[in-house]
Amino acid sequence: MRTIRPPGREVIPVAEADDPRVADYRDVRERDLVGRDGRFVIEGEVVLDVALSRSRFALSSVLIAADRVPRLGALIDRVPPDVPVYGAAPAVMDAIVGFPIHRGILAIGLKGAAPDAAAALAALPLRALVVGLVGLANHDNVGGIFRNAAAFGAGLVLVDRGCCDPLYRKAIRVSAGGVLAVPFAPVPNGGAMIDLLDEAGFEVIALSPRGDETLARLTPPPRAALLLGAEGPGLPAEMLARTRTVRIPMQAFDSLNVATTSGIALHHLVHGG
Amino acid sequence: MRTIRPPGREVIPVAEADDPRVADYRDVRERDLVGRDGRFVIEGEVVLDVALSRSRFALSSVLIAADRVPRLGALIDRVPPDVPVYGAAPAVMDAIVGFPIHRGILAIGLKGAAPDAAAALAALPLRALVVGLVGLANHDNVGGIFRNAAAFGAGLVLVDRGCCDPLYRKAIRVSAGGVLAVPFAPVPNGGAMIDLLDEAGFEVIALSPRGDETLARLTPPPRAALLLGAEGPGLPAEMLARTRTVRIPMQAFDSLNVATTSGIALHHLVHGG
Repeated sequence: MRTIRPPGREVIPVAEADDPRVADYRDVRERDLVGRDGRFVIEGEVVLDVALSRSRFALSSVLIAADRVPRLGALIDRVPPDVPVYGAAPAVMDAIVGFPIHRGILAIGLKGAAPDAAAALAALPLRALVVGLVGLANHDNVGGIFRNAAAFGAGLVLVDRGCCDPLYRKAIRVSAGGVLAVPFAPVPNGGAMIDLLDEAGFEVIALSPRGDETLARLTPPPRAALLLGAEGPGLPAEMLARTRTVRIPMQAFDSLNVATTSGIALHHLVHGG
Repeated sequence: MRTIRPPGREVIPVAEADDPRVADYRDVRERDLVGRDGRFVIEGEVVLDVALSRSRFALSSVLIAADRVPRLGALIDRVPPDVPVYGAAPAVMDAIVGFPIHRGILAIGLKGAAPDAAAALAALPLRALVVGLVGLANHDNVGGIFRNAAAFGAGLVLVDRGCCDPLYRKAIRVSAGGVLAVPFAPVPNGGAMIDLLDEAGFEVIALSPRGDETLARLTPPPRAALLLGAEGPGLPAEMLARTRTVRIPMQAFDSLNVATTSGIALHHLVHGG
């Protein structure tokens, strides 16, 4: 099998599922739950496109199903020259990852050192939008919020220790690459998050079903931080006591999904008023 | 096993997975894909609560894991007297449905006759909000849109033939019961949808990334219909040509999720301007 494609990137053929060069892709589902080795998994064309154009993360390698090479040629030509691109027959690819993988293209990213939250806040422009997540353990919701943060141009996401790792495979996929495009920085807890935002001159807006103000009536401040808690518990009372609290009025229904809520609030903070 | 709970509802014990009284719950996953018998599956406490309080659909029966009976007593006491409530040991319940069911409570609803779209539109109050879905085949997205439609008090959802059945199990679950709370009516296609909305005096607003107007600048009309198409293709060009087209400006990112988009637009139509 030769899949060299002059004049584009060379695709290195991988014939055996136990080839050590693709060990990073082995048992992708379990790897997710461990995630101890500073690597993360990128799935699909849309996310890899973001990873190659607007991501702070370096890639370690790319693995593509041989039958996708012709269609995805333009994408793999953009992979940096020092990053190997492996090609495997679809059945071999399935055997490597441990389940039938439909997307046909995967890559391994390197987490690197997490940005320092204070430094990242200080580096933002005067007019900026930050999202703060507290206790958000659900990968779909975290991914959805990052997708919205990217769509509305948030400059930074702060995540407390109660949140899941945004670089979890499913969160990245749901974010459509937003996790790679929007920088995020860890903070120990919600109190420290508010301290940092206060020091950086952000107006801290906490979304809560029992908020004092109505979102639609809020005049967006030039430097806004939007805080979101998990569905169900929401933000801790001690955080609500220290912030401007805002609600989205609803009709006879418990609550919106938190990712949808983030979209509504970010849209208002960017385009409202 | 006797699980009669005076003075509440009787729970009829089911000891065998092949008991014909619980045949409706057998192989729930496959049943979803067939869905030919006019029945649908309700899962979990939140959705059953909606089904018992604000749904047009009659229930056929309820099935509860015996270990949940004490905690869910108040809910099952609200089941109408002519609807049997069956109780099964958790292992028997798993064997009936064909996979480990964590929610512990299921019910079967009866689809009944679909409402007539023109009659349903005519019955709406002067100030009303309608959502129209065209070609939305993704169950998560349809469920998410219904959740938002319920949260923002939409009076009706119109669904064209390209949409999935909103009564698909996953759509109901994702909607948090919104599919049961908000009436929906079928229409043959997008053209017929616009015709009906025009006749009923609705201002028809089509969301599109290439819309002429910006959502945030739109003054919400008293009688608004919001049209949404599938992610990717969007609404057909011939529908956009006949409607007021609105976009949500985004920053260097393909698009928002369509369910999130619906939440942003419905929030604006209810609370904006």
